[in-house]
Amino acid sequence: MIVTVTLNLALDVTYHVAEVAPHSANRVAAVAQRAGGKGVNVARILHALNHETLVCGLLGGSTGDAARIDLERAGLPVALSRVGGETRRTLAVVDEARGDATGYWEPGPSVAEREWRAFLAVYDDALAGARAVVLAGSLPPGVRPDAYAELSRRASAVGVPAVLDADGDPLRLGIAGRPALVKPNRDELARVAGDTDPVASAERLRDAGAGAVVVSQGADGLLAVTPEGRWRAAPPEPLAGNPTGAGDAAVAALTAGLVEGTAWPDRLADATALSAAAVAAPLAGGFDPDVYRRHLAAVRVESLTRHGGALRH
Amino acid sequence: MIVTVTLNLALDVTYHVAEVAPHSANRVAAVAQRAGGKGVNVARILHALNHETLVCGLLGGSTGDAARIDLERAGLPVALSRVGGETRRTLAVVDEARGDATGYWEPGPSVAEREWRAFLAVYDDALAGARAVVLAGSLPPGVRPDAYAELSRRASAVGVPAVLDADGDPLRLGIAGRPALVKPNRDELARVAGDTDPVASAERLRDAGAGAVVVSQGADGLLAVTPEGRWRAAPPEPLAGNPTGAGDAAVAALTAGLVEGTAWPDRLADATALSAAAVAAPLAGGFDPDVYRRHLAAVRVESLTRHGGALRH
Repeated sequence: MIVTVTLNLALDVTYHVAEVAPHSANRVAAVAQRAGGKGVNVARILHALNHETLVCGLLGGSTGDAARIDLERAGLPVALSRVGGETRRTLAVVDEARGDATGYWEPGPSVAEREWRAFLAVYDDALAGARAVVLAGSLPPGVRPDAYAELSRRASAVGVPAVLDADGDPLRLGIAGRPALVKPNRDELARVAGDTDPVASAERLRDAGAGAVVVSQGADGLLAVTPEGRWRAAPPEPLAGNPTGAGDAAVAALTAGLVEGTAWPDRLADATALSAAAVAAPLAGGFDPDVYRRHLAAVRVESLTRHGGALRH
Repeated sequence: MIVTVTLNLALDVTYHVAEVAPHSANRVAAVAQRAGGKGVNVARILHALNHETLVCGLLGGSTGDAARIDLERAGLPVALSRVGGETRRTLAVVDEARGDATGYWEPGPSVAEREWRAFLAVYDDALAGARAVVLAGSLPPGVRPDAYAELSRRASAVGVPAVLDADGDPLRLGIAGRPALVKPNRDELARVAGDTDPVASAERLRDAGAGAVVVSQGADGLLAVTPEGRWRAAPPEPLAGNPTGAGDAAVAALTAGLVEGTAWPDRLADATALSAAAVAAPLAGGFDPDVYRRHLAAVRVESLTRHGGALRH
């Protein structure tokens, strides 16, 4: 079973508006909402690929209830800890005429120390049955910025590898907990390493405690810096669609590969194809199975450490 | 006790954003939310004026739970009927830099026939202790457009006068239920009467079944067409502020006057002053007590039927 942790779980709300008239009242033609946050998206994808998952995290208020009901409807097992504050909504207002969207991100609920301790008890229980744990996304107010280091250490202590996908301080400080894998995107990596060269930056993260580093580089695919070698994996064709959720799909595939002990080139090919399939899906946490299959057969993975060129294509 | 009916009850959500960047992601600095809808706003104002109230209406889903919790926190007694659909949100995104707001109105929940019948049972019970009933606002999908006529007739049958504040078909068809008072604004009146002269239009509504008609005319105050005479009430000074909720304040004052048997000129002065005080308050359902007192002493009420000029000033 793979545990995914989403401390700043959200209710993702989408408003479809025929044509947004700023500074006046707009009728919303259709409302869609579902539970979101990086860890939830990762769990959705793993669940769709028939992996056993458990969604851990914090939630509160009636928005938290709505998120929990949605997770249960989706068939995702949950071990969620209640907080007194209100779970945040992330709203996307889709302007159908313009074909784009404006996002509004609410702040998360403020988490008290005793609520954090209650979460840790639930988390430790969840680790007992886990083969890996995914620590993903932002931290709500009140949670200490080194929270991911603590969660990673607790996982390591019981032999569960942690996969970390975060930004800023939660990423930088989280690495001290020695996660097995860290998956920043190019910008997140540059921010935390203070260096624009991705290989050098990834090595710095490894020096600081990360077991392996996989950098998601958008249309340029993935770069992996691991104890077994370095690879670059590139999608066979440029991608059009919704890039939200592509990183979550990569994390899902990389975590599945970690649990199954797949060789790095195959793991990276899988993550690249699943990312592309996520870009082709309308919502984060989904993927297009046809795109997944088509890309999986065509991803090019190139070793950067040996001179043999493409290992798999 | 005054019953207020809000069939399309809402959760009014306000996002404060430093400066809205369209077509990208915006951090919401602060979120405020509370139960809304015309009938709820009327009940809030009556409650603040120490009238006993009962909020009736339909609500559902986790958004409905949030609205109910807010009403209970505000100390407003409720007799709400549950529906399977989700209560709507009305979102106002306030752009602090521009000083204006963009509204997004979700559609209401779809109401099934058996849910409507369950509401009628609750409504009939509520009427037993009522001195007046306020029927206000839009109808959610699935509720027949002549719903207000039925609610007005049921009230009349047990000797409870109904006050109707609606637009379009719910107003036009509702008048057949012979409400004691109808409160359209100028546009609503013109739409339903098909005439731009407000006195002639108001008389048409009386011919169709309305006992009295009070037209809210924004900065021009109120026009009353009643069996006892016609009056115009004007605020002493132009108003600046938030016009949302001014009509609800007028309905609250007119209903209180109806219950207390206040003379029309005093009733209109009260409604005009309370409307002005609502414009001076930041949220619908609130009013500024100082503005209320100041205006109450200064509203001019003029008879349009006798030649005595101002009856009260």
